[in-house]
Formats: sequence, C-alpha cells, structure tokens
Amino acid sequence: MTVARPDEVRRFNRASLLRLLHVGGPATRAALATELGLNRSTIKMLVDGLATDGVVEERVPRLAQGAGRPSLLVLPQAQAVVVLAVDVQVEHAAVALVGLGGQILGRNSWNLHGRQRNPEEVVTHVAESAALLVSDLGVRPVAAGISVPGVVRRGDGLVHDASNLGWTEVPFGERMGTALGIPVVVGNDAEFGALAEYVRGVGRGASDAVFVSADVGVGGGIIAQGGLLRGSAGYLGEIGHMTVHPGGRMCHCGNEGCWETEVGEAALRRALGLDPMAPRGAIVAEMRRLQRDSDPAGRLGEYVEWLILGLVNVVNILGPELVVLGDLFTTLPGPVLTLAEREVHRRSMISRAIGGIRIEKSSLGADLKLLGAAEAAFEGVLSAV
Amino acid sequence: MTVARPDEVRRFNRASLLRLLHVGGPATRAALATELGLNRSTIKMLVDGLATDGVVEERVPRLAQGAGRPSLLVLPQAQAVVVLAVDVQVEHAAVALVGLGGQILGRNSWNLHGRQRNPEEVVTHVAESAALLVSDLGVRPVAAGISVPGVVRRGDGLVHDASNLGWTEVPFGERMGTALGIPVVVGNDAEFGALAEYVRGVGRGASDAVFVSADVGVGGGIIAQGGLLRGSAGYLGEIGHMTVHPGGRMCHCGNEGCWETEVGEAALRRALGLDPMAPRGAIVAEMRRLQRDSDPAGRLGEYVEWLILGLVNVVNILGPELVVLGDLFTTLPGPVLTLAEREVHRRSMISRAIGGIRIEKSSLGADLKLLGAAEAAFEGVLSAV
Repeated sequence: MTVARPDEVRRFNRASLLRLLHVGGPATRAALATELGLNRSTIKMLVDGLATDGVVEERVPRLAQGAGRPSLLVLPQAQAVVVLAVDVQVEHAAVALVGLGGQILGRNSWNLHGRQRNPEEVVTHVAESAALLVSDLGVRPVAAGISVPGVVRRGDGLVHDASNLGWTEVPFGERMGTALGIPVVVGNDAEFGALAEYVRGVGRGASDAVFVSADVGVGGGIIAQGGLLRGSAGYLGEIGHMTVHPGGRMCHCGNEGCWETEVGEAALRRALGLDPMAPRGAIVAEMRRLQRDSDPAGRLGEYVEWLILGLVNVVNILGPELVVLGDLFTTLPGPVLTLAEREVHRRSMISRAIGGIRIEKSSLGADLKLLGAAEAAFEGVLSAV
Repeated sequence: MTVARPDEVRRFNRASLLRLLHVGGPATRAALATELGLNRSTIKMLVDGLATDGVVEERVPRLAQGAGRPSLLVLPQAQAVVVLAVDVQVEHAAVALVGLGGQILGRNSWNLHGRQRNPEEVVTHVAESAALLVSDLGVRPVAAGISVPGVVRRGDGLVHDASNLGWTEVPFGERMGTALGIPVVVGNDAEFGALAEYVRGVGRGASDAVFVSADVGVGGGIIAQGGLLRGSAGYLGEIGHMTVHPGGRMCHCGNEGCWETEVGEAALRRALGLDPMAPRGAIVAEMRRLQRDSDPAGRLGEYVEWLILGLVNVVNILGPELVVLGDLFTTLPGPVLTLAEREVHRRSMISRAIGGIRIEKSSLGADLKLLGAAEAAFEGVLSAV
C-alpha cells in the first residue's frame, strides 16, 4: 500500500511526463496536459525544469494550426539520459547504448563459441565493448539492462539456470554491476522481448498480451493489466516447459513433451526434415522456401498442431488480447499463422468471449531484446532524472 | 498513467487507512502511522474524521504496554459499511450481508434445480432474499459482489457462458443492478475464490498465488504482484480448459483432454469407481474413506497424474509462490497433496529456482465465494466512504 504525500507529487508528475515523452515521443504542451490531467501552468513548470536540466528542448511546431499562439512542442533529448542494453544469446552477444525515447545510439556484437560462453568471459567482453561504445559516442550510461536466455531472479540478477549457455547459479547481476560500475537489472530474454513489444512494438496499447518466442529454447513473457508479470521471488514463468504432449520426447528439464521440445528449434529442424546439426541459417532458408509451398501447414505436420495446442492453453489461462510470436516463429508462413489464429479462436472459450485474439509476429527484429533490456533499465531511471 | 494532485492525497490516505483496517482488523494509531508512512498528526486527523462519520471507534487498549500514554486502538465498525455478497453455484445459491472488516452479518441460501436456474428466477430470488436480510438486520448494503461459475465480463457483468447453469450471453450484471438498485460487480467464481484467499485466507501476504478449484467444472484465479489478474476485456482465463491430455476425453467446450475433463467432479467419480450420477455427497463420503487408505494416490490412479501435470504447467507459466486448492480438491487426502507438492517441485524448474512452491487447501470453507464477492464489492466502496 503506497501513499502519496504532497512533496512527492511533483517528482511523480515529472517522472510521468518524462515517461510519456520517452514512450510516445515529442508532444505539445497542450497534449501533455490533456494526457496527464494536469493544468497548463503545472506543465509549464515541469517542462521548464526539464529544459533547464537539458533533458528536453522546446520548439515552435513547424505547422502551427488554427488561430492564437501555437502550443510549444516538447522534444526529449536522446543523449540526456542513456542506458546500456546487453543481449546475451546462445550463439552471440550484443551491447548497445540507448537514449531517452528509445533510440539506439550505437551497438557492438560478437559471436559466442566454446569458452567465450563462460560467464567471466562474457562479463569481461561486455564491459570492454561497453567502454568502447561510451568513448566512441561520448555519452555515459546511468544504468544497464541485461537479457539472458534462462531462469533469472530479478532482484539481484542471479541466473539460476541457463541450460543452453551451460550456466547454473551464476551471480551474473552482481558481477556485471561490479564490472560496469552502474546499477544493472538482469532479466529473462523472453520477458524483455515482451517488454520491448509492449513499449515499442506490435504490443503498444495492449493491456494484456503474451509474447512467445522460439530460439534454441521456447520462452515467454506476459503483459497483464499494462505491466510485465514478474512471478514470485522475481522469477518469471517458464512457458516453454508447459507439458503439451504427455509421453512425448524427453526435454532437458527432465519432463516429457514440453512445448519447447515440440516447437523449439530442434522440433522445427525435424519438421523440415533437416539434419539435427543443421545450422540456424538452414532453418531460415528452408522456412523461406516453405512460404511458396501450397500447403505449408501440412508440410510442417504435427509441429503446427503442438504450436496451436500450446497457444490455446496460454490463451485459456491468461485471456490476453494479443499473442506476439518472436525469433524463429517469425519465419512461420502466413497461412500457418492464419490457421493458428482460426484454431485458437475455435478452441478457446476466452477467444470466443473476447471476439477473437490477435496473433502477430514480432516487429522489432534483431533489436528486440536490446530494446527490452533498455526499457527495463529506463524503468528505474526515469523517476530519478 | 495516473497523477496524484494535492487535493486527492487526503482522500487517498483516508481510503488507504480504511482498507488497512478492513483487511488487517483493529490497530493502534501508532501501528497505522508506521504501516502507512504517515505522521501521527495526519493519522489523528484521518481517524477523527472517520470516527465522526461513525466508521471507526477508538478505545484505550485493555493492556497498555510500557510507559507513557497508550496509543489509542482504532476499531472498524462492521455495520458502518455493508455490502451484499451473492454466490450463484450450479446446485445452490446464497446471499450474505458482509460488514467492514469482512464479518458476515447474516446469510440465506437455497437450492437451485430445473427452472430455478433461469437467470430471471435467480435475479428475483436474490433480490427477495437480500431484502429479507436487509430488513432482518437493519443495515443497508451500498454495493453488491456476485459470483457466477462462468466466463464473465468484469466491466458490465455480462455472463458470456456459464455452461453448467445453461446460461449464454446473459446481461446478469445489468439485471441484478436494476433489481437491487445499487452498484454491482459480477465475477467468475474461481476469480472471487482467489480474491477471498488472498485477502482473508491462506493466501494472505502472498504476492503471487494461483487458486484452482474443482466443482462441476475446474476454474482458477490468479493473484500476480499483489493484485487479481483480470484478463483482457475483463475476461479471466479459463485454466480448466488447458489441454493436459491430447486425444483424451471430449469436453463440453469442444476440445479433448481439458484439465477439467481429467480432474473435475466427473473425473473424481470415475477415479473412485462411483456411478456417473452419484451425488456430490457420495464423492465426499468416499474421499473421507480414502483418508484411511494406505495408498490413496495409487487408488486414485491417473487422476493424480493429471492433477500434477496441470499443476506443473500452471507453476511453470506463472511462477507463483503458492497454489491454493479449493472446493472438491479440499477433500484430497494428505498423502496426495504431499505427493503433488513433491512432484511439482521435481518437475518444475521454477519451483526448483524458488526453492519450492506451497500447495495448500482453501481455508475458508463454504463461505469462500461469498467472502470473495464481498471483497470485490468493497474494492469500489472503500475509496468513497
């Protein structure tokens, strides 16, 4: 239970205004007043304060409409507040500096093989790459968000288990914090993917959405009532380890027939008849060829059935308005998505009650997790600017 | 995005204080000050205002501890704020008047058979029973919370589908509102069960909990980060229609092998070898006998396996710290619960990361949904007292 005191109101309003500019982009003073429910003198006071601190600039809009003095346009200054975003994946890693408003100011990436996947190596390489970016761009990040493909405790960034990296009980948040010398927040990659789509992608404006992505594993992030679910003790759920096929294939988690086992990267290779060692590129190429197939869903066989079954379960449990598919799922041919949307609607009471649930592909491409990690870092920063 | 203005702060503080007394019971002024982070003069002003309005009384604690003037004890007055709680189940219905602090001041219940299940009949009977209670007790409810076993839109109380009652697209909220003449909130029964356990039962203090109950159907409610999930468009998820057994029995929802089909009332009858038409009482009696069986889990056979599989899925998706089992699940013998807790821990990465997830039986008995419906009504009321 939180209680607002008069002396906190101004800080709260300043943070709200800043967040609005960060998420929505440049806006006139009049629009900010309407959106925040504040009067124009309060808005003027807040904007003047932010302008003095160099966080925003004001400008007369190029096309002033109607009579009278035009409302000034308030522009967030990307370089005024910068965070470091880090995306650790199984095969590669990337760092970026992201400015107020969500603009990527610069980035670096590298491949991860063998011992480069050791947590110590990753920490060192991230810190070095970040330092290079900082000196190249001449800006200094005030916080960092770090995406990891594993079970992560949000409070301190302990990576309980990232099987595909071979990490167990790694105090990654602590080590990165020491190496970078700024506050860090570490999160599950699918969780950050959900956050990115919610703030910057196809999930904008959706108050309840589920993000599901297939990489080596299958992960998910949940937006409920306009916020990212965290799970108890800061552990997000592991949607990929929902059992969809009792008695099915063994999963590395010890269970049989997990969703991940039936629709992850390895399952997609099997469905396409590719060699179990075929590289990611071969999957993508084969999926591209499948776009021209007359019956792509039939060609993928039971892969599609398990995909749909998992989606029906997710929809029935969470009742979202939107499901966003990420990573390898974005290579699915259009007819497969259409079929999935139709079948989810047919099989889910919730979908029928709501009048249909949208299933869309992630729109943010390779930057998805960097953008999500940046937003996680901004969350703690904007109230203190 | 909400913004607090100074003139709203006092109302907000008053509502916070009232909610604290409503949920936590009588407290000293000193404890209220600590809990709310307000100074003693603000607390005095708020309590004096509430006392003048007859909402609280103050009393010198019987056992004053330590030196100095004892801090006055503030007691919420149950009769000062009263709501109507309605629990519509498949076989019976109940109404109760519930006072500030959650005390049931009086109740009425009746069986539902045949045409008594028609929405019009239910509306009429609820309104008549409520009027009787009101005149008996001499208190007047300011709002009503109504629990229904179906897919309900929270915004206006439209019952999209309550198959076990035979209701489809019933504007129940609207009709009850007209019949009662007070604001009503209609919700799914499992959702209200979750709310009751969270505010008054074994879920107190748990920020992430899942409530699952087996009645004729299987339903669930989700508490995440200290609040009840609502789902998009106000539709809660239908956890009972998660597929756990592809190719399993047909469910009335049109799918095969739903969790409800495998662990609901009918499934429990099958597991116990009872006649498909055996009444609820026969199930309860048989479950009681099972408490003395040397291997109750073995006796229930695959029923237990489907129960565990569904629980693992729920835990993997939502990462709660606690799962509360309600209704028929409360008849499960202790060894079955112990086995479920152990198996969920063994099979769920999330449970292993958190260090175990508690599985407990609902503690609120037959009043569960009445208490949850009352809390839903109080939510809208306490900020306006």
